[in-house]
Order: sequence, then C-alpha cells, then structure tokens
Amino acid sequence: MDVDKKYFNNISNRERAIFEGAITMGALFHQFDGTPVNTESVESLEKAMQDAMELQPCIEKVEVKINRKVLEDIANQFQYTSLNGNMLDVKVISVFREEKVIVRMKFIPELHYPLMYIEEFE
Amino acid sequence: MDVDKKYFNNISNRERAIFEGAITMGALFHQFDGTPVNTESVESLEKAMQDAMELQPCIEKVEVKINRKVLEDIANQFQYTSLNGNMLDVKVISVFREEKVIVRMKFIPELHYPLMYIEEFE
Amino acid sequence: MDVDKKYFNNISNRERAIFEGAITMGALFHQFDGTPVNTESVESLEKAMQDAMELQPCIEKVEVKINRKVLEDIANQFQYTSLNGNMLDVKVISVFREEKVIVRMKFIPELHYPLMYIEEFE
Amino acid sequence: MDVDKKYFNNISNRERAIFEGAITMGALFHQFDGTPVNTESVESLEKAMQDAMELQPCIEKVEVKINRKVLEDIANQFQYTSLNGNMLDVKVISVFREEKVIVRMKFIPELHYPLMYIEEFE
Repeated sequence: MDVDKKYFNNISNRERAIFEGAITMGALFHQFDGTPVNTESVESLEKAMQDAMELQPCIEKVEVKINRKVLEDIANQFQYTSLNGNMLDVKVISVFREEKVIVRMKFIPELHYPLMYIEEFE
Repeated sequence: MDVDKKYFNNISNRERAIFEGAITMGALFHQFDGTPVNTESVESLEKAMQDAMELQPCIEKVEVKINRKVLEDIANQFQYTSLNGNMLDVKVISVFREEKVIVRMKFIPELHYPLMYIEEFE
Repeated sequence: MDVDKKYFNNISNRERAIFEGAITMGALFHQFDGTPVNTESVESLEKAMQDAMELQPCIEKVEVKINRKVLEDIANQFQYTSLNGNMLDVKVISVFREEKVIVRMKFIPELHYPLMYIEEFE
Repeated sequence: MDVDKKYFNNISNRERAIFEGAITMGALFHQFDGTPVNTESVESLEKAMQDAMELQPCIEKVEVKINRKVLEDIANQFQYTSLNGNMLDVKVISVFREEKVIVRMKFIPELHYPLMYIEEFE
C-alpha cells in the first residue's frame, strides 16, 4: 500500500512536513514532561529525547535544550525537579520531499508559557 | 502581544489548523499511552482524554474511542491492560478562523500500526 | 503458578500492601503529570485517574483531589495549565490479606514539594 | 523539619526501603512507557531512564535493560516501536539506613506480563 498516496493526497508536501513536525513536538512534550532531572542527569535526558523523537516519521533532527539556569537555581533547595515545558527549548526539523520546516518550542517571557510555532521554512 | 501576528504570520490559516491539530494528536497519544484500562474504566478514561485535549489551542472537539473488543478479549486472561495506540480511534477537530481540519488516528490492519492523518477539511 | 508463594514469600503481608500501594502512587504521578487541566475538565480527570489506578494489584480505592484554588488562580491568565505534583492530593488504599495501608501524596508547604508517605495502617 | 521523624516514624527502615523502591519502579514504567525506540536509540533511552530514576529518594542505583531481541524482530517490519513493559527488565536498588532492597520488574512468560516484586534484601 502506498500510504502517502492513499492517506496524504489531500495535503501539500509543505503541509505534510508541518503535520509530522507538529505531531512530534506534541509527543515529545507529553512523553517526557514530569521526568526527574537535575544538573547531573540533564545531558542523558536531552540525548534520549532527541534520539527517541528522531525516529518518528519525516523527522530529520531534533534538538533539545533543557534550561541549565533553572536546574542550577533549584539545586540550592532540591536534589532534583520534574521536567516541565517552561524549561524546554526544542527544535524539530521535519522534512517531506523537498519541503523542510523547523518547528520550535520555547518559553516566551511575555506569554509566561512555552509556545510551539514554526520558526522557519527551508 | 498579538501572538498570531508575531509567531504565525508565516503560515496560512489552513496550515495553522493542521499544526494545532497535529500537536494535540501527538500529545494525546504520549500522555495517555500506558494508562491501566479495562472494560470498567474505559469510559472515564475516554472522557478525560477528550476533556483534557479539548483545552489545547484551536481544538474544537476531540473524540476518543478505545477498542472494546480488545478489552473484552484480554478480560479472559488479565484484570486490565495498558492503553496502547493499536486500541485507539481518535478524531481531533481543529479550527483556525474559517479553516477546519479533522485529524484522525486509527489502526490500519494492512500497516499493523495506528496511522495519524488528515481525514477531512471542512 | 502461585505468584504470591513464588515471588512474594520473602515479604510480610504488611510489606506487600506497602509495596503495591507505593507502586501505584509512583505510577499515578508519572502517568498523568503534564495533562492539560482547568476548572472545567478537572472532575473528569480526577475520575479517570482514580478508575485507572484502582485497577492495579491490591488497590482497593484511589482518591484524587486536584487543587481548585490553583486552577482558579491560573484561570485569570491562562486557559489551562499542565497537571503537576504540587496540585495533587492523593490517597491510595492498598490491601493485602488482613493488612491495609493508606499511601498519601500531598504538597507540604514547609518542604515546597509533594511528599509521598504512609498516612495510616488499619 | 525532620521529614523522616515526622512522616516516616510509623514504618521500619526495611519498609521505607521497600516503599521508596516501589514508588520508583511504578514511576519508571509510567514515565517512559510509549517512548519511540529501536536498536539505534535503545542505549540512550536506557541511560536516561537510569539517570532520571536514580534521582528519586533513597535510590542508589537503577539498571534498565530493554529487550534487544524484540527490537531486532520488529526491525524487519517497522522503523521503531513504542516502549512497553513486556520489553523491560529493571532493577531498582533502594537503600534506607542499613536496609537495602532490590526491586525487580521482568516479563514472566507463564504470566504473560511484567511482574514487579522484591528480588533480594541485602
């Protein structure tokens, strides 16, 4: 079965790249939110998040940065914290045929929450 | 701050509806996958999944059906199972301005996995 | 196979009740942390958390209360928030044979985090 | 505040080690169940699971082995799969004062599910 032809002939290549990138961003957030993390464990968590999410359809690359400043601040009071969206800066690079999009999630100070949006088309 | 203007002026209204619907589908899968479920608890789980995911940006409605046949089959051997994607049939209806899309996830027998795709534009 | 005899003959009935109650408390926290929630959806989420976690071995009852005050406060600024441990007050009642324990999780102001402990033996 | 004295004076040191080990095992399962994984990404996922869960109270060491045979088998048909309990073999080593317990989760063929139990006291 030609999945692209049967299930995705109603959207453009650019829309497909957006669709797959957005799925992966939503998945990443909700899979890992709540994971215990501190300055010692942060690197292996970032790497696992990247490696896992790069497996999803059309995903070329995932870059995850967890805010070190937040982790250092909590280290004065707690041994670790639970990962939450406010600490995350993520790029998901999604490619379908000739279309490439960079989906971004980052904390926006004026909004007081982490926004997911499309940073760039290439 | 006008978020739409500042962060989403690079995509069409239709692309925005796709983007938000896809985020929510990825989020739903990875938030609830692994939840204990059986024929007794399935209704409250479906309702909570719907209510939670309808809160996300641009989401008008979410319909979740967990496969009763699978739950009845396992009931002969186990008291419950862990929710997984193969049991899920989900519609996420996402609306941005005049554009409405229905994102669907369902198990496709020929593929042996649950596919996420866009079922319809309205 | 007699599972209790083969795998649990090294612990007392009271230890078994503690063991199963503690597993369920850890499971509950990490399954649902991150779920979108507001004052509208909170009841169905509490119910689903209870129903799902009551399926686990030896669990007689689970009571989940999500802090309404926190949800009302965020409602002034946001449409919803992500469930986190600080909002949760949970009792897991675990029973093995004649032994019953109540495992509790609640936010402790002096500690600034939600503590899991054994509230009572019956 | 002396947390041990205030909240844990109703249980023995051995019970405390069991309690904390069991919480971490339940947490580990429900945090990571559903994560995309294949033979390429399995090592970084195991490492992140270990590093994250070793942060929890009283946890001295966590060993996670994800079944390579299962991952190799699915590789013929799929690019990746979702992590589930049947693939997991986990040891959580929990210590409180002089008491050490090894909590184990592994798939038991006769039961057709992954059992959590206490493997050893030291």
